[in-house]
Amino acid sequence: METLTVELGDRSYPIHIGRGLRHASEYLAPLLQGRRAVIITNETVGPLYLDDLRNTLMPLQDQPVAALQLADGEQYKNLSSLEQIYTFLLEQRLERNDLLIALGGGVIGDIAGFAAASYQRGIDFIQVPTTLLSQVDSSVGGKTGINHPLGKNMIGAFHQPRLVLIDTDTLNTLPDRELSAGLAEVIKYGLIDDPEFFAWLEKHIDALRARDPQALAFAIARSCADKARVVAEDEREAGRRALLNLGHTFGHAIETGMGYGAWLHGEAIAAGMMMAADLSQRLGWIDTDSVSRMRDLFSAAGLPVTPPAGLSPARFRDIMAVDKKVQRGRLRLVLLHSIGAATVTADFDAQCLEQTLEALTAA
Amino acid sequence: METLTVELGDRSYPIHIGRGLRHASEYLAPLLQGRRAVIITNETVGPLYLDDLRNTLMPLQDQPVAALQLADGEQYKNLSSLEQIYTFLLEQRLERNDLLIALGGGVIGDIAGFAAASYQRGIDFIQVPTTLLSQVDSSVGGKTGINHPLGKNMIGAFHQPRLVLIDTDTLNTLPDRELSAGLAEVIKYGLIDDPEFFAWLEKHIDALRARDPQALAFAIARSCADKARVVAEDEREAGRRALLNLGHTFGHAIETGMGYGAWLHGEAIAAGMMMAADLSQRLGWIDTDSVSRMRDLFSAAGLPVTPPAGLSPARFRDIMAVDKKVQRGRLRLVLLHSIGAATVTADFDAQCLEQTLEALTAA
Repeated sequence: METLTVELGDRSYPIHIGRGLRHASEYLAPLLQGRRAVIITNETVGPLYLDDLRNTLMPLQDQPVAALQLADGEQYKNLSSLEQIYTFLLEQRLERNDLLIALGGGVIGDIAGFAAASYQRGIDFIQVPTTLLSQVDSSVGGKTGINHPLGKNMIGAFHQPRLVLIDTDTLNTLPDRELSAGLAEVIKYGLIDDPEFFAWLEKHIDALRARDPQALAFAIARSCADKARVVAEDEREAGRRALLNLGHTFGHAIETGMGYGAWLHGEAIAAGMMMAADLSQRLGWIDTDSVSRMRDLFSAAGLPVTPPAGLSPARFRDIMAVDKKVQRGRLRLVLLHSIGAATVTADFDAQCLEQTLEALTAA
Repeated sequence: METLTVELGDRSYPIHIGRGLRHASEYLAPLLQGRRAVIITNETVGPLYLDDLRNTLMPLQDQPVAALQLADGEQYKNLSSLEQIYTFLLEQRLERNDLLIALGGGVIGDIAGFAAASYQRGIDFIQVPTTLLSQVDSSVGGKTGINHPLGKNMIGAFHQPRLVLIDTDTLNTLPDRELSAGLAEVIKYGLIDDPEFFAWLEKHIDALRARDPQALAFAIARSCADKARVVAEDEREAGRRALLNLGHTFGHAIETGMGYGAWLHGEAIAAGMMMAADLSQRLGWIDTDSVSRMRDLFSAAGLPVTPPAGLSPARFRDIMAVDKKVQRGRLRLVLLHSIGAATVTADFDAQCLEQTLEALTAA
């Protein structure tokens, strides 16, 4: 069992990480005093863990625990699923003082979190993330939202959960491909500002893919702590928090360009981080050896290291132009000086970006 | 020209009230340094004032001033209009650092405000309210949102504008019926905690309906100041702010029950305030004379004093059960001890509420 706190003043909240926590009513009880919780999950996670969580909640509230199962997949992270949640909450007559619990991966966390942020202008919510990606990413920082056909995560709110419960046992049912996708975000934390963690990952990547519980618990806690530190310094992404977007501008372009759901988010940002590394190298920032280490680690994690065929440089440019990090028409990117030293900048040679797009998308 | 400040710490903002302010670029210029603004309006207000506002903005930014005209009416305050705005903002490639301006009545302010709250997780916005109702109500307090078929204003966010510009000249094109609807909210401020203002309104109601500019400017500034005082004490509506909902629980039930747009909001809450007064009188709180003064003032303002025929007590109960002010299944209402002394309470005789519903809806 590990516990850490995301420090955000009166919006601080604890993250508990351990085996079997979906059964641990002691963490939920204090939040359910005289209130009622409903659960948002999806059709993949629901059949696996909804009953467990329901049984944990049942003794804590005097009404049945209602749940809504959405369709599974990034392509359902849209306004129409959001509307389904609103209708469900209103039919359930959920009150402003009640609670919403998100049980599932990042899509469920993001969309249920935004529903919580906007239902009756904001109600409390709890995250029970069941994928590695959501455990190390969306469980920290309070970003919630949905996609728009013209751009990923373009609609949303900052809304911090009251509690995050990470049950590492739920990773046993996670498909290999999704475990790998989660590892992309884990590796990202090493690249941003934790070279020691990157080196640890190089040594333990096989144990992680074999789902060694201790290795997983360590990697999750370290990732959450790394992210929590950045978020605590810059909740609303005025500055430093943008580092967490390493690989994301390229990655979002891949996701948008291929259609949501074709590539997993983690796969897209792994390729995106390699694109950022390629550009950083062309700028003379990061050395060849470090780029090779990155390529080797992503490959060992079962992740792609180049963007998909079929996305032209022109299409990349077009999608990246509406990125949330564009300021005064200038694209800002997260680039690398070395492993463990990322930086946000709009001050790079646009020619080099062109070369990266031409070189990698031609592959 | 009158100026007041809504005091909300780092979210404080000024409200300027005066004739011809849609031409006053000096208030807009400081917010537009190096940023770009787009305008959301509707098909009624757009043809009247969009060009004026565009001309005021034009010298302040180096790009054309893009605008979106929505359909006019409460029935369009829904997810589908919101989606239209998101698509427009993305097509315009509006950046997180840019500005959205709401030009129109309460519907435009609420929906554009919520779009601003949720586009890219929140961008700045400016209100240029053109109806009396929106000038005295939605311009203060940062409530934004949309309706759901199962409940009014059930989806939304608290998002404060950076600036409110009230051009009293825009009231010259306001239909009489909408002017009256706005007066309902004006009278509400007198009823809540400003008996002096209520007495002033009794004397000046004819001047207001005749659109005397001085009387209007006074009534708007006093209303905004009354509301700003309450909001400053309780931004997130934990307590005292709920007083502003006088007449609204009954009123929302009328709006939801009749279908959005059949009755104007102000009409619905005027009838709602009379229902609250009737209940308060049955509880032995407010005296008959005060209820008569209320009835006379609402009538003189051109407002209904009873709910519409065709809404049964059962339908009222049903709709009121999902009100945002329900806590632990108990309905809380704003009731009156006297003119200028409102109170929020769940502690009232449910029988009396039944009697009010039976007596007034039978009418």
